[in-house]
Amino acid sequence: FCAEGEDLRFYWDEGLKLDSADKNFRLRIGGRIQADWAAIAASDGLDSALEAGGQEPIEGFGTEFRRMRINFQGDIYRDVFFKAQIDFAPAFEEGGAVEPKDVYVGYHTGTDLGDVMLGQYFAPFSLEAMTSSNYITFMERSIGIDVMAPSRRMGASLFNGAGERLTWQAGAFSTSEGEPDYDNEDNWFAAGRMTFLPWLEDDGERLAHVGASYAHQFVSGDNEIRYRARPEAHLAPSRLVDTDTLDADGSDLAGLEAALVLGPLSFQAEYVGNWVHRDDGAGDDLYLQSYYAFVSWFLTGEHRVYKSGVFSRVSPNNNFSPQGGMGAWELAVRWSSLDLNSQDVRGGKLQDVTAGVNWYLNPNTRVMLNYVHAMVTDRDSDGVVIDDRESADIVQMRFQVDW
Amino acid sequence: FCAEGEDLRFYWDEGLKLDSADKNFRLRIGGRIQADWAAIAASDGLDSALEAGGQEPIEGFGTEFRRMRINFQGDIYRDVFFKAQIDFAPAFEEGGAVEPKDVYVGYHTGTDLGDVMLGQYFAPFSLEAMTSSNYITFMERSIGIDVMAPSRRMGASLFNGAGERLTWQAGAFSTSEGEPDYDNEDNWFAAGRMTFLPWLEDDGERLAHVGASYAHQFVSGDNEIRYRARPEAHLAPSRLVDTDTLDADGSDLAGLEAALVLGPLSFQAEYVGNWVHRDDGAGDDLYLQSYYAFVSWFLTGEHRVYKSGVFSRVSPNNNFSPQGGMGAWELAVRWSSLDLNSQDVRGGKLQDVTAGVNWYLNPNTRVMLNYVHAMVTDRDSDGVVIDDRESADIVQMRFQVDW
Amino acid sequence: FCAEGEDLRFYWDEGLKLDSADKNFRLRIGGRIQADWAAIAASDGLDSALEAGGQEPIEGFGTEFRRMRINFQGDIYRDVFFKAQIDFAPAFEEGGAVEPKDVYVGYHTGTDLGDVMLGQYFAPFSLEAMTSSNYITFMERSIGIDVMAPSRRMGASLFNGAGERLTWQAGAFSTSEGEPDYDNEDNWFAAGRMTFLPWLEDDGERLAHVGASYAHQFVSGDNEIRYRARPEAHLAPSRLVDTDTLDADGSDLAGLEAALVLGPLSFQAEYVGNWVHRDDGAGDDLYLQSYYAFVSWFLTGEHRVYKSGVFSRVSPNNNFSPQGGMGAWELAVRWSSLDLNSQDVRGGKLQDVTAGVNWYLNPNTRVMLNYVHAMVTDRDSDGVVIDDRESADIVQMRFQVDW
Repeated sequence: FCAEGEDLRFYWDEGLKLDSADKNFRLRIGGRIQADWAAIAASDGLDSALEAGGQEPIEGFGTEFRRMRINFQGDIYRDVFFKAQIDFAPAFEEGGAVEPKDVYVGYHTGTDLGDVMLGQYFAPFSLEAMTSSNYITFMERSIGIDVMAPSRRMGASLFNGAGERLTWQAGAFSTSEGEPDYDNEDNWFAAGRMTFLPWLEDDGERLAHVGASYAHQFVSGDNEIRYRARPEAHLAPSRLVDTDTLDADGSDLAGLEAALVLGPLSFQAEYVGNWVHRDDGAGDDLYLQSYYAFVSWFLTGEHRVYKSGVFSRVSPNNNFSPQGGMGAWELAVRWSSLDLNSQDVRGGKLQDVTAGVNWYLNPNTRVMLNYVHAMVTDRDSDGVVIDDRESADIVQMRFQVDW
Repeated sequence: FCAEGEDLRFYWDEGLKLDSADKNFRLRIGGRIQADWAAIAASDGLDSALEAGGQEPIEGFGTEFRRMRINFQGDIYRDVFFKAQIDFAPAFEEGGAVEPKDVYVGYHTGTDLGDVMLGQYFAPFSLEAMTSSNYITFMERSIGIDVMAPSRRMGASLFNGAGERLTWQAGAFSTSEGEPDYDNEDNWFAAGRMTFLPWLEDDGERLAHVGASYAHQFVSGDNEIRYRARPEAHLAPSRLVDTDTLDADGSDLAGLEAALVLGPLSFQAEYVGNWVHRDDGAGDDLYLQSYYAFVSWFLTGEHRVYKSGVFSRVSPNNNFSPQGGMGAWELAVRWSSLDLNSQDVRGGKLQDVTAGVNWYLNPNTRVMLNYVHAMVTDRDSDGVVIDDRESADIVQMRFQVDW
Repeated sequence: FCAEGEDLRFYWDEGLKLDSADKNFRLRIGGRIQADWAAIAASDGLDSALEAGGQEPIEGFGTEFRRMRINFQGDIYRDVFFKAQIDFAPAFEEGGAVEPKDVYVGYHTGTDLGDVMLGQYFAPFSLEAMTSSNYITFMERSIGIDVMAPSRRMGASLFNGAGERLTWQAGAFSTSEGEPDYDNEDNWFAAGRMTFLPWLEDDGERLAHVGASYAHQFVSGDNEIRYRARPEAHLAPSRLVDTDTLDADGSDLAGLEAALVLGPLSFQAEYVGNWVHRDDGAGDDLYLQSYYAFVSWFLTGEHRVYKSGVFSRVSPNNNFSPQGGMGAWELAVRWSSLDLNSQDVRGGKLQDVTAGVNWYLNPNTRVMLNYVHAMVTDRDSDGVVIDDRESADIVQMRFQVDW
């Protein structure tokens, strides 16, 4: 086939890329470093309620690498593709170990079936869950999405993202990665997501996106379900809401999503409803729900970039340089809500307001500043009792280089 | 020497390669993703015997990354070579961690001494053990080789693989990697292997290979030897045969190997005999043995590729593509046997029949389907008692991209 | 900015490098493999004293990968820089895991402020500590530097290394990496270092270097400080001196350093003094001190290479080759001392003499042979009592490929 080998062009185009002249071989060497600092404080009532439940108070100053990933991916022989991505950040912690993230092989069928994907990756569910952590607007995904979406799992799926306006993906997924918020490792998911652009103008500078996701979780035997959430700060030492373990044989998750890009101004919102089917005698079925909505505005005129059903990399109109460019500046505010109260379960209700400033020095460097105000009410679980509104405040920064 | 630097040509030739014009610098960036699925069932008698011994029954459906490796290797300044290879697959498991695999430095002496190699790599023993997992004909190496060959160890050796027909390697090896089937970490091996091609025609399309290996294991102090084996399926939860720990001060391993390539048809077989020298008072010395033989046939006309004493990468005559190419298709059947019964030890006897279909989409992509029928007899060890023949059946698939 | 991408030149210049034509993008793919062997023996009195304290005797023969690192680093968009470096060597050990090493992002301000660096890296302190393990003259850094210098920590600093003769760096650092010799994880450091070349001739072939470092360690709450040291051999199983845990609320470290390069002959020396401020009632404040001095001589005429305040890579005048070149040969002798006795604390006094031979086959390959004679006196801590001089002898080798 290529006995003498096929020359590869090595270049930088917002990342490290290698292509053969006929584009049959296209390889990418990528990575991301996200260094975080956070200062955290809480109302006295919240700290004492957490401590009464044997948990750490939400206080302190911390620093961590949120992600430190290397990935190698590519298309070879035109139709075969693969990705191998490793996160080294968990290895910084005492006793921590490296975590494989996206690891899969696949085949571009070139038909309406789209791509066959086998391995570990995000089960198709939710716009914010499936948008890369390099490109999300705030430092953390909203509480509801983070807790309820199936996240990365080992599975098989079909993905068709080639249509100009339509994408869909559906598959079956098993073992979950790392340390999920679900306590059970042996659950299965059937999951699917479909997105559509009813409006698309100016090469994506103006668009309206709508989408829907559905997932059924099969829980077998003694396995249990548990939902719990930190405020939108990974350095926060404790979870503020928690259903505790629920004896259940499954759950149905439904998600609705919408986004609107009007040049530098954009809006995004999602709703996730979750029907938890409890085991006989374990109580009535639950309905848990969450949603978020945010608005973002680029002061410097850029717009959020949409690509195959998710948001992608923003490139400043002028890169930052001491000689004059100021990069891209984005302001954003999000309201998010997670309600873990249903029937007899009082996991609590968490509402976060997040204000963010993002400074994109160039396409591959971003500094983020987030202020999060988290409000908890109506929790009585795992020894933590909160009646009136208690709150936590977090100021956090991220220095990100990704390529 | 090269103050301004030496330009490297970056190209794809069945893998990612970089060469300087004078070939003094030759670098390779490699990797492999092997995603496995398996369905496993056993006879009632086998499951109950295992459970009586406190082990998990051989039942279920599972999925795992068998290997997820990245490696960087090369020759620099013409004579110095090195390899650094890491396996991330074990990190997918709860509590699992990354495992370094081949990691060594060496020097091409350019004399009859061949290459000096220092570091961790496969101690020279057995054709199947030393053939890369990318190129083995079945999803797993045969039971006897997997259990008895010394595998990767830290050591020093001389390797001469430059002869057209003759290769030899000999060295001394200490600490073993990861979790070997040997219980003791502090054993030493002296090991050597020699191979020869009595017949070689048509540029390797027809050849006969013979080889012999010998290893002496030094076991010190309180250390013990233990041999145990799964059926030829890594996802199987339990070992079917097991000597339990043996008080021994050493063992002698001898291996004989042969292979015959007749164009698309090929045959391969090995025998390993193992004299275990038990400590005084621990019982008479043991003689354990294993062998396998297999036949492989490429329906599409390719042939197995031989290189310096082992088998290597197969390239389809026509890569698979929706426009017509069907890739390479290989059928293969293997019989393998491991006998862990000798003197008073009743570790059991395991015999596996494996039928395999391999589909090579292109030189770097392979889909494997294996059916394994494993038969255990005559075991009474570690609480597991099996008299009559009990059996397990496994259907397993692998999706492999390696480069 | 570079919609079509910017071509990168891929070349080998004592390492793997990629540059864009305008030098705005400069990337490096680096790594190091250090394979060590050591034989260790001790006086009977030392072994019995260690065993009386419940520690392993200093005896045996061992092998390990001291370091097995991969790193990816670069400058992008001219002013932004980053480095991601992982050490896989600790994963070779049972239960060991990968350790991230230098991981940071930064910005070249182009002003007198120098570079802003955020992430994990060596806190600025000591010439030997900040010289890469690829380039240090002996297999291990001297005992005092290894134990007292703050080493790698998560922090923020300013670094100005652009001056021809002057460098300075200062910053604040928190959580320490991996398993430090300090027992406490929650201490903080403010650290700074300044270096100057009073004499610089012949493009660095002759120079005099002086420098000073200062660090204040803040120790909070119940945290403790502990200093302890192996002889200068990482494979030695026990520490020879040990203060045991000290209740302290901080310490002040001051370091002085000097080096003189006279062509092939060079000298280097450092002194570190350490005032440990103990908690009220825990005893009087301590003054611990250490120093080393060494001389190195290149038989083959090369000289040690100085770069921005540290020593760097040596390139042989003639690379080793069977056709005649013999590489570079270096002889070196070091005297080092660590005194952990002060007030009521009898951690012991350790003095090492190390003789070394280094053979540089080419700029990226080095074989090191070290003989270490370690002498302990006057220790009474952690159950180990040594009055008269006891000693250990170590012969160790390293095979190193780094690029």
